[in-house]
Amino acid sequence: MEKIPFALIGAGVIGQVHARNIAAHRDARLRWVVDVDAIRGKSLAEAHGAAFSTSVDEMLADPDVQVVVIGSSTDVHDAHLLASVRAGKAVLCEKPIADSLDGAKSCLDAARAAGVIAAIGFNRRFDANHRAVFDRVRAGEIGAVESVHIVSRSSEASPPAAAHRAGGMLREKGTHFYDLACWMAGSEPVEVYAAGGCLFDPEYAAFGDVDTAALTLRFASGALATFSFSRRTRYGYDEMIEVFGSKGMLESQRQRQRGVSLYQGDKVAADGIFSTWYDRFAPTYVAELDALVTAVRSGVPMSPSLADGMRAQAVAEAAVASLAQGRPVGIADLWSMG
Amino acid sequence: MEKIPFALIGAGVIGQVHARNIAAHRDARLRWVVDVDAIRGKSLAEAHGAAFSTSVDEMLADPDVQVVVIGSSTDVHDAHLLASVRAGKAVLCEKPIADSLDGAKSCLDAARAAGVIAAIGFNRRFDANHRAVFDRVRAGEIGAVESVHIVSRSSEASPPAAAHRAGGMLREKGTHFYDLACWMAGSEPVEVYAAGGCLFDPEYAAFGDVDTAALTLRFASGALATFSFSRRTRYGYDEMIEVFGSKGMLESQRQRQRGVSLYQGDKVAADGIFSTWYDRFAPTYVAELDALVTAVRSGVPMSPSLADGMRAQAVAEAAVASLAQGRPVGIADLWSMG
Amino acid sequence: MEKIPFALIGAGVIGQVHARNIAAHRDARLRWVVDVDAIRGKSLAEAHGAAFSTSVDEMLADPDVQVVVIGSSTDVHDAHLLASVRAGKAVLCEKPIADSLDGAKSCLDAARAAGVIAAIGFNRRFDANHRAVFDRVRAGEIGAVESVHIVSRSSEASPPAAAHRAGGMLREKGTHFYDLACWMAGSEPVEVYAAGGCLFDPEYAAFGDVDTAALTLRFASGALATFSFSRRTRYGYDEMIEVFGSKGMLESQRQRQRGVSLYQGDKVAADGIFSTWYDRFAPTYVAELDALVTAVRSGVPMSPSLADGMRAQAVAEAAVASLAQGRPVGIADLWSMG
Amino acid sequence: MEKIPFALIGAGVIGQVHARNIAAHRDARLRWVVDVDAIRGKSLAEAHGAAFSTSVDEMLADPDVQVVVIGSSTDVHDAHLLASVRAGKAVLCEKPIADSLDGAKSCLDAARAAGVIAAIGFNRRFDANHRAVFDRVRAGEIGAVESVHIVSRSSEASPPAAAHRAGGMLREKGTHFYDLACWMAGSEPVEVYAAGGCLFDPEYAAFGDVDTAALTLRFASGALATFSFSRRTRYGYDEMIEVFGSKGMLESQRQRQRGVSLYQGDKVAADGIFSTWYDRFAPTYVAELDALVTAVRSGVPMSPSLADGMRAQAVAEAAVASLAQGRPVGIADLWSMG
Repeated sequence: MEKIPFALIGAGVIGQVHARNIAAHRDARLRWVVDVDAIRGKSLAEAHGAAFSTSVDEMLADPDVQVVVIGSSTDVHDAHLLASVRAGKAVLCEKPIADSLDGAKSCLDAARAAGVIAAIGFNRRFDANHRAVFDRVRAGEIGAVESVHIVSRSSEASPPAAAHRAGGMLREKGTHFYDLACWMAGSEPVEVYAAGGCLFDPEYAAFGDVDTAALTLRFASGALATFSFSRRTRYGYDEMIEVFGSKGMLESQRQRQRGVSLYQGDKVAADGIFSTWYDRFAPTYVAELDALVTAVRSGVPMSPSLADGMRAQAVAEAAVASLAQGRPVGIADLWSMG
Repeated sequence: MEKIPFALIGAGVIGQVHARNIAAHRDARLRWVVDVDAIRGKSLAEAHGAAFSTSVDEMLADPDVQVVVIGSSTDVHDAHLLASVRAGKAVLCEKPIADSLDGAKSCLDAARAAGVIAAIGFNRRFDANHRAVFDRVRAGEIGAVESVHIVSRSSEASPPAAAHRAGGMLREKGTHFYDLACWMAGSEPVEVYAAGGCLFDPEYAAFGDVDTAALTLRFASGALATFSFSRRTRYGYDEMIEVFGSKGMLESQRQRQRGVSLYQGDKVAADGIFSTWYDRFAPTYVAELDALVTAVRSGVPMSPSLADGMRAQAVAEAAVASLAQGRPVGIADLWSMG
Repeated sequence: MEKIPFALIGAGVIGQVHARNIAAHRDARLRWVVDVDAIRGKSLAEAHGAAFSTSVDEMLADPDVQVVVIGSSTDVHDAHLLASVRAGKAVLCEKPIADSLDGAKSCLDAARAAGVIAAIGFNRRFDANHRAVFDRVRAGEIGAVESVHIVSRSSEASPPAAAHRAGGMLREKGTHFYDLACWMAGSEPVEVYAAGGCLFDPEYAAFGDVDTAALTLRFASGALATFSFSRRTRYGYDEMIEVFGSKGMLESQRQRQRGVSLYQGDKVAADGIFSTWYDRFAPTYVAELDALVTAVRSGVPMSPSLADGMRAQAVAEAAVASLAQGRPVGIADLWSMG
Repeated sequence: MEKIPFALIGAGVIGQVHARNIAAHRDARLRWVVDVDAIRGKSLAEAHGAAFSTSVDEMLADPDVQVVVIGSSTDVHDAHLLASVRAGKAVLCEKPIADSLDGAKSCLDAARAAGVIAAIGFNRRFDANHRAVFDRVRAGEIGAVESVHIVSRSSEASPPAAAHRAGGMLREKGTHFYDLACWMAGSEPVEVYAAGGCLFDPEYAAFGDVDTAALTLRFASGALATFSFSRRTRYGYDEMIEVFGSKGMLESQRQRQRGVSLYQGDKVAADGIFSTWYDRFAPTYVAELDALVTAVRSGVPMSPSLADGMRAQAVAEAAVASLAQGRPVGIADLWSMG
C-alpha cells in the first residue's frame, strides 16, 4: 500500500516530534514542511527528505497531500485549520483549536462541512496507562464513575510571557486534563470552579496568569473531577489520574524512570518519575499518529476529535472566567455552541 | 507515680475505644463511665472496674477525677464540655465541639477561663504516617507548602438519618481533614468552595446532605487544599494525603493491610488497604491518649486543642454554606470569633 | 473462665517479651519467673506480680502451673524441657530444642510419652504476612510449590562469641527459616548445601562460624529452597519470602516502617523497612501465645510443634556439616530419628 | 559519516531482531543476510534491502563488510566466529561462543590474534535498570558486594528437545546470569553448586536437562551469588536482581507492563510484569548495537567481550558437572584456559 503523504505546519518543538514520527512511520511519509521561519523549516524538511515552503497555500495546492498536521503557533491555528479542511485535507491540530471559542466553532463547522477527518492533539489519550484505565472504566470494572482526580505538574516552569502567549495555565495545560476527565467520566461538563494564585513567581500575575491552581469540574452525571496543577516540581514531570466509581477505583500511577531501589539507612530510595514531559510521553505521539493513519485509511472519524477539542476549550474558558470572578461558572452555554 | 483518674462520658463505639485504652494505659485508670443508657454504660464500667452513673454532675462532683473524655452524642457535647471545664477538669472532647459555632465559642471561652487542658479528638494527627509528613514539612524538607490533597472515603456508608444527626458529611467527616490540611499547610483557612451530590443514595438529599463531595480550601499563605470525599468505597477505608511544596512532595500513602502479593496471569494482586476505619486508625487513639496524659502531667497545652476544633468547625460551617449557595464562602469572620 | 497460670524460665530479652505478653493476655497470668540471675529474675517477676525462684524444681512442684515457657540459655533447654514435660506441664520452648540432635530427640520422646502440648518458638509462623502466604499456598492458589526463596539479614550483627554460644548462624538464624521453608513447601527436607564465609568480620571464623551464607535445600517433592543470610544490614531488619509454584508466585514482602514517601530530585525516598527484629516481629509473639492458650484449652496439639523444631534442627546440623565439608549433606537419617 | 556495513548470519528470531535494529540505526546499514534456509533468509534480506547468500564465505569475501553479527545455531557459532575474525571483521556473537570450552577458547585466541572487536551477545547488561545497579555498585553506593540474588523465569517453556539443542537450561539461560553476577560482583567465579530437577515436565530429564534449578556461585572475593531458574511462569517473564553489600542493597526490580492498579474488594490488582522476553528486553538489543557501533568506530574493545562469554561458559560447564555429580565444582581450571 502507498504511504500517506503528510504535510506539517510548524517546525518548532512539537513539529519536530511529529516530523520524526511521520518519517519513521510504516504507512506515512513527510511531503511538506511549512514554517514562517525558513531556517528551521528548511532544516527540518531536509532532515526528512520533505519539500519546504513558507506558504501554507503552496502546500495545500499540492493535490498529493492527504493529511495536514498543524503545529504552528496558537494564534494562527484556526487560519491553518480552516484553509486545510477547505482544501479537503484531513487534519490533526495541536490544541487549542483557536484563540477564542468563536474561532474554534468556525473551525468545527468548516470541518464538518468538508466531511474530513479532523482530530485534536490530545496525545494523553494515547498513553498506554491512561488508556487502560479508560478501557476498564468503560468495561464497567468500577461501575459508575463518581469522582476523578488528576494531577498535572510540569517539571520546568514556562516563562510567564511565553505561558501567557500559549493561553495561560488554565488553557494551555488545562485542556489536556479537562479532556481526560470528560473522557474518563463519560459525561458532559456542566460547571467549573477554579482557584489559583502565584505561589512561587509573581510575574505570572502580571499576565493575569497563575502558577498553581485547583479546579473542580461537575459533570451532567453528577460526577465531580478535581485537578491539581502546578507549573513546576522539583522531582520530575508529575501526572497521575484516579477514577473512583461505585464498584472500585482505578489509577494511572506516576511513572518511574527505572525500577531500581537503594535500601540504605532508614530509607528506600527508588528512581524518581520521568524528568520531562517528553521522556514521559514520547510514545503517545507515535500512537496518536497510528490512530490518525488508521482513521485516514478507513474514513472512520478519529477520537479525540475537533469536537472534543472544542469541549475542552469551553471548559478552559469557563475556568478562566471562574478564576477571574471567584465563583463557579457554567459551561453548558459555551459548549452547546459546538 | 499515681495513675491519673479518668472519667468517660458516652459508652458508644468511640467511648468503648477510649475505655479500653484508658484501662490499658500505664499512667491512667478509668474511674467513671457516664451514659444515659444504663445498660451499656454499666456493662462498660464493670468491664474496666469503673464506677457508673447516668449523671454527669455526680461524676464531676468526684474530686478524684482529673480528666474527662467526652464521647457523648454531638448535641450534648457543649453541655458536657462546659460542665467539665467549669468543674476544673481537663477535657478531651470528640469533634465537633458543638452543634453551632456560637456553642463552640462558648466552650472555648470557658476552657480558657478555667485554664484547663482542653483537647479535641482529632485522632488523625496521631497517625504515625501523617505525623511523619507533618514533621518533615515543618522541618523544611519540601520548602513552602503550595498545595495539599486529601482523600477520605469511608468503607461503609452511614445511614442517611444517622449521618445527618452527626452533622452531615461536610461536618462529620470534613472536620478531621480540614484540620489536617490547616496543620500541614501551617496557615489559616480563608475561603472554601464545596461541590457535592448524591451519587449513589438519594436519601442523603432528603436531609440536605451529600454522599460525594469535592472541596477547595484556600489558605492565607495562598496555598490550596483539595478534598475528595465519599461515603463508601468497595475496597476498604481509603485515606491519603499529598503535600506539595516548593522543594518536593511528601505523601502519606494508602496503608495496605498486609504485604502479600500474588503474581498470576497478567496481574499482580496485592492485599488491599485496611478494611475499616478502626483497623486503620486504632493506634492513633492510644497515641492521642498518651499525648493527653503527657499534657495533664506537664500542664503544657495539648495539640490539637479546642481552638483547632473551633477552626475546623468554622471551615465546616462555611463548606455547608458553600454547598447550599453554590459559591465559595469566606471563613475568616466565622473563625475570628475564636 | 479462670486464667491459665504460666511459668517462665529465663528473664533475658526474649523472656521479658513473653512475660509482658502473658501478663497482658486475657486468658493467661504469669505465676512464676525462674532465672539463675536473681536480680533480673526478681525484677521481672515483680513487674508482673509473679513469684520468683532460682529453682526450676520449686516452680514445677507448684501444681497450679499449667504451662512453662522456656527462654533460658540454649545449653539448658533440654534439661528444662525434660523436667517440665515429666512434671506434666505444657511447654513452649525457644529454639533450638537442645545442643545436639540426640538431646532434642530425648525431649521429643519425653513430650510424646507425657502426652502434653509441646510447642517450639518458631514465632515467624505467626507473622500475618507469612501466614497469609502459607494459607494461600495450601489453598492451592499457586499450585504445586516448585521453589522458595528466603532472605534473612539481621540489622545488627551479634558479637562472634555470643553468636557461637547460640549455635552459630546456620543454627541460630537458620532454624527459623528452614522451618518456614518446610512449612511453605509442604514437604520433608532431604538434602542441604551450605556455602558461606566471613565477609565483614573475620572473628566469626575463629569460632567456625560465618557472617554471610547461601543455602540450597531440596525437598522430597523435588522443590528447592534457597536462603540468603547475613548477620547485618545497613538498612534495617530484612526478611522476605517468595514461594513460586506451578500456577503463580506469592511473596511476603519486606515490611516498611511507615507509608511515607518524599519525591525530590530524581529520587522517591520511601521510609525504610523496620529497623530491628523486635519492631518487625513483636506481634508474632502475641499471636504465638494466643495459639498456645488455644492449644492448652482445647488439648489439640499446637503447630509448630517440638517435632517441627526437631526437623529444623536436623536441617541445621546437616547445613553445618555441609559448610564444613564443602558438599551437600543428606538430612533424612538425622531427621528420621524424630 | 558513512554508515557501517553489517552482515548478519542467521535469520531466525534473534536474527530478525538484529536485522530490524541494524536497519533502523543511524550509523549502520544491513549489507548481507546469510542463512542456510534461503526462504527465510531472502525474505529478511529483502525486507531490509540487503543482499542474501547461503554462503558465509561469499559474504566474508565482500571487503565492504565491517561487522558480522552471528545469530546462527549454536553448533556453528565457532565456525562462523573463526571465519569472521580471520577475515578481519568485527563480530558480535550470540552466546554461547561454542558447544565446548575448547571450541570457545580457539575463538577467543583467534579473535585476539586478529585484533578485532569481538563481543558476546549478553544483552541483559544493556538493560537500563540492571546497568544503573551496576554503575551504582561500582560507584561504591553499597560498599563491598557480599551477595547477589538473581531470578530468571521464562514465561513460556521451550520444548525439551529444542532446549537441549540450545545447551540445556544451565547453559542457555544460565550464561546470561552468571555473566551478570560476575559483572555485579566485580570478582572472578571460583566454584558453583547446582541443584535442579524436572518439577513440571519429565521430558527434560530424557535429555539430561531440568526445568527448575537453584545455583550457588562463589567468587574469589568471597561473595556469594544465588540463582533461581525456572522454564515457565504463569505470570509473565520474571527477571530481577538484588545486590547486597556492606553499606546497603540495590535491586533491579521486576518490571511491570503498565502502571495501572484496580482497588476492589480486599485486593489491589496491579498490571503484571512484562509477558514475554521480548516485551521486556527489546530496548537492550538497540543499546547493545549502539555500543557495538561505538566500539567499531572508536576501536576501543566492547564490554561484554568474548572473554566475558568464555568466563560465563566456564561457569555453565561447571554447573552442568555439578548437577550431574551432586557436588560443588571448581571453575578456576576451566576458566584459566581463557
